Amino acid sequence: MKNSQVNTKISMMMDFYSAAAAAHAFDGEAPDERIVWFDLSFRKDPRLGGFCVTAGLEQAAQALEELSFDEEELSYLSEQGCPAAFTDYLRNMRFSCDIWAVPEGTPVFPNEPVVKVRGPAIQTLLIETLLMQTMNYQSLIATKASRIVRAAQGRRVVEFGARRAHGASAAVCGARAAYIGGCAGTTCVEAAMTLSIPRYGSMTHNFVEMFDSEYEAFKAYAKAFPDQCVLLIDTFGALRSGLPNAIRVFDEVLAPMGKRPVGVRIDSGDLAYLSKRVRRTLNEAGYPDCDVIASNALDEHIIAEMIRNGARVDTFMVGEKLITGGDVSYFPGVYKLVARETDGKAEPVLQLSENVSKIVTPAPKLLWRLYDMETGKAVADLLTTEDEDVSQEKEYKLFDPDYTWKKKTVTNFVARQLLTPVFEDGECVYRFPSLDEIRSYCAQQTDALWEEVLRFEYPHNYYVDLSQKLWDIKNGLIEKLRSDAAAE
Amino acid sequence: MKNSQVNTKISMMMDFYSAAAAAHAFDGEAPDERIVWFDLSFRKDPRLGGFCVTAGLEQAAQALEELSFDEEELSYLSEQGCPAAFTDYLRNMRFSCDIWAVPEGTPVFPNEPVVKVRGPAIQTLLIETLLMQTMNYQSLIATKASRIVRAAQGRRVVEFGARRAHGASAAVCGARAAYIGGCAGTTCVEAAMTLSIPRYGSMTHNFVEMFDSEYEAFKAYAKAFPDQCVLLIDTFGALRSGLPNAIRVFDEVLAPMGKRPVGVRIDSGDLAYLSKRVRRTLNEAGYPDCDVIASNALDEHIIAEMIRNGARVDTFMVGEKLITGGDVSYFPGVYKLVARETDGKAEPVLQLSENVSKIVTPAPKLLWRLYDMETGKAVADLLTTEDEDVSQEKEYKLFDPDYTWKKKTVTNFVARQLLTPVFEDGECVYRFPSLDEIRSYCAQQTDALWEEVLRFEYPHNYYVDLSQKLWDIKNGLIEKLRSDAAAE
Repeated sequence: MKNSQVNTKISMMMDFYSAAAAAHAFDGEAPDERIVWFDLSFRKDPRLGGFCVTAGLEQAAQALEELSFDEEELSYLSEQGCPAAFTDYLRNMRFSCDIWAVPEGTPVFPNEPVVKVRGPAIQTLLIETLLMQTMNYQSLIATKASRIVRAAQGRRVVEFGARRAHGASAAVCGARAAYIGGCAGTTCVEAAMTLSIPRYGSMTHNFVEMFDSEYEAFKAYAKAFPDQCVLLIDTFGALRSGLPNAIRVFDEVLAPMGKRPVGVRIDSGDLAYLSKRVRRTLNEAGYPDCDVIASNALDEHIIAEMIRNGARVDTFMVGEKLITGGDVSYFPGVYKLVARETDGKAEPVLQLSENVSKIVTPAPKLLWRLYDMETGKAVADLLTTEDEDVSQEKEYKLFDPDYTWKKKTVTNFVARQLLTPVFEDGECVYRFPSLDEIRSYCAQQTDALWEEVLRFEYPHNYYVDLSQKLWDIKNGLIEKLRSDAAAE
Repeated sequence: MKNSQVNTKISMMMDFYSAAAAAHAFDGEAPDERIVWFDLSFRKDPRLGGFCVTAGLEQAAQALEELSFDEEELSYLSEQGCPAAFTDYLRNMRFSCDIWAVPEGTPVFPNEPVVKVRGPAIQTLLIETLLMQTMNYQSLIATKASRIVRAAQGRRVVEFGARRAHGASAAVCGARAAYIGGCAGTTCVEAAMTLSIPRYGSMTHNFVEMFDSEYEAFKAYAKAFPDQCVLLIDTFGALRSGLPNAIRVFDEVLAPMGKRPVGVRIDSGDLAYLSKRVRRTLNEAGYPDCDVIASNALDEHIIAEMIRNGARVDTFMVGEKLITGGDVSYFPGVYKLVARETDGKAEPVLQLSENVSKIVTPAPKLLWRLYDMETGKAVADLLTTEDEDVSQEKEYKLFDPDYTWKKKTVTNFVARQLLTPVFEDGECVYRFPSLDEIRSYCAQQTDALWEEVLRFEYPHNYYVDLSQKLWDIKNGLIEKLRSDAAAE
């Protein structure tokens, strides 16, 4: 029997209503005839701050390239009530969607299209769950990592949450996303090996306790790992026992070999206080180059507070509160229909909601980021219809889509499109950057945001505005739906 | 390139410090000679209530049966500094641990051994991460599901969080754990198919919007799915538009076919209020058998509050706050060394911690649950050493391990051991029950707990006591470590 934890068929990763809808939507029609447009975007969650970092596109694209259904799957769908015409369609399906996406590692703002899909209605419904699942999880972790790395203010952050990740694929893909978001590496061997992520390590309390004394354990580790000697010093008390034993082993084992220690790790107690004491003692013992490494249920809030308290930490090892999202366990991603095509023309679609913030901007669109030519900083994002070209504009009049009297004229800017072609007629046309390229791009694009936008709590509201044309389409549809409702 | 989201080698799912420790712990020794004992248990998290439901054993056992290392993996470990003696050992390793575990679906309490491992130190370290990862995630979801199902007080709960699960394996294994915890089924097709979990479905707003009107969408769905017709009624307003359209379609499409509708779903607005209005209207229209289905970021707290407010809901569909753990995104599982063997004799090991609640009870142990013969209710759990047999006792004097003056004598009880052999000398000896058997067992064992223990907030503290002999071992070790420390 296959192990579902490590081997899952992604093509069947769908909610049944997607399959049902796909199966029965267009009774009697040629199945590929009805063309629709979808946007994948996310809603605001203040706990994630003002923006998110998108990730997961490569795994999503892999899944789409492998989209296919075997006979076992088709007969399961038949048993569940799906008609033969549908399973026949799936058997011979040629994936033919067009997909555009924001490159992985881009900071993105609520309600922006991160992925845009155009294709046969059946196919756009079939891929809904797998696309969301893949993008939601990695974007959650990349966003969380970005926050934690910024809180650490230049100090190293290492991901080490595999033991509490939500299964094997979460551990590996989570380590990937954490690296994109700025982590220095991971302790997860499978992730480090398969994705070429820098690998970190240390020792555990269990290891120390397997020996007759802490000193014996340290000595064994130092002899075995003279080039990467990181000792965990808090099993019997960091200041009283661990640190003196560590220094003794550095002196007795490493020094004669001409080796320097890499670090000592503290995993309990008052980390800010202990780090200062440990730092001073290491310096006095002649090991100013030995890192102080801290761990124990850390997240961006605890790290920021530790630094405010003067903690002398070089590396933060962050486990469960990174790899699971911690206080935010899921990403608020949504996948919404924005247009239906009639005779090759996209007709915008809008769903009214009691909750105004849930209304998705209709129509296929372009996403522009405007950078100030002088500072290089991003000044605003702009959503336009597909036939607008902002790159040629010398000045642009922005206005707030809700409070339309709030206006701002931007000049001296460069406008770049963020959505890039990934699939054309079902063929993958995107050159996937390496993980290191994505990580650098993420750092560089995050640097292009103003400090006020990067703030953890109550960040400045970055402009995400609509062109006049798009605003008119959206508000025209709202007006129409409301007057239809009133007329009933 | 393989897709890490759906295909992961579990053998390499380890933290590097486990590999490093395994590699270098016993320089010069015969690698299988040093035998140690580990307990996997969990710490208290009040947000999970007083107890947890254990799950994941079957996937963990599958992973252990497949434990092996290929040349690519071995050479990666070599590059990372692991010596040839270690990679040679891994190449030819025969898994030889003994493992006992509490059956899946058992309610367990903080600090109880859920899995007990005895084996060569190297092997016990190698499996640490994969064992914890598998058990932690499924136990989190089974526990959360159990809470949500209890909050629903007999109403149906369906898992439908695939789109926000932490990847594909999380969606599938999460649906499995949710079913163990009492959910009626899942909407995730891959999980339903591969694990034979009952499959549920509905429709989406996107589906409704693909049609020219809500009525047209409902009609298409009802025609296609006359036997499982569930309509989503809140796209344009549940009471004003969705419900009248649904009833019209039930009358026009289903009734002439002699079919009855299954349900209508509400996904926004005030669900308690709407459910009452919808129920009344359905009854008046002649559809008292049509279920009212509610969804929208539900969890146990919202469901309990809805029921207090008189909501008339038959089925709750619970998504992201179940499949990710919601407010508790990770399970507080730990894997701790409890004994080292010398000449075949287990010597208990204890780690002092500044945090008293983090001190793990040492020694290999047995876990007993005492049931009252009259009521069938569980009255206490008891940890003993391996040579104690409580099953023959007529009365037993319990005492609180912290406040030892708190005593209670239990009579007229049956004592059952909860830990069952799963691996003997590396061979799997356990007959894994079917998922339905696990689910029934979970319900039955949960019923055996007193109402006060089941309470969500401030549950009664269930007795988890130590035998006098085990208490003496633990406190003897604490005394010894403290006097060693004082003597230094």
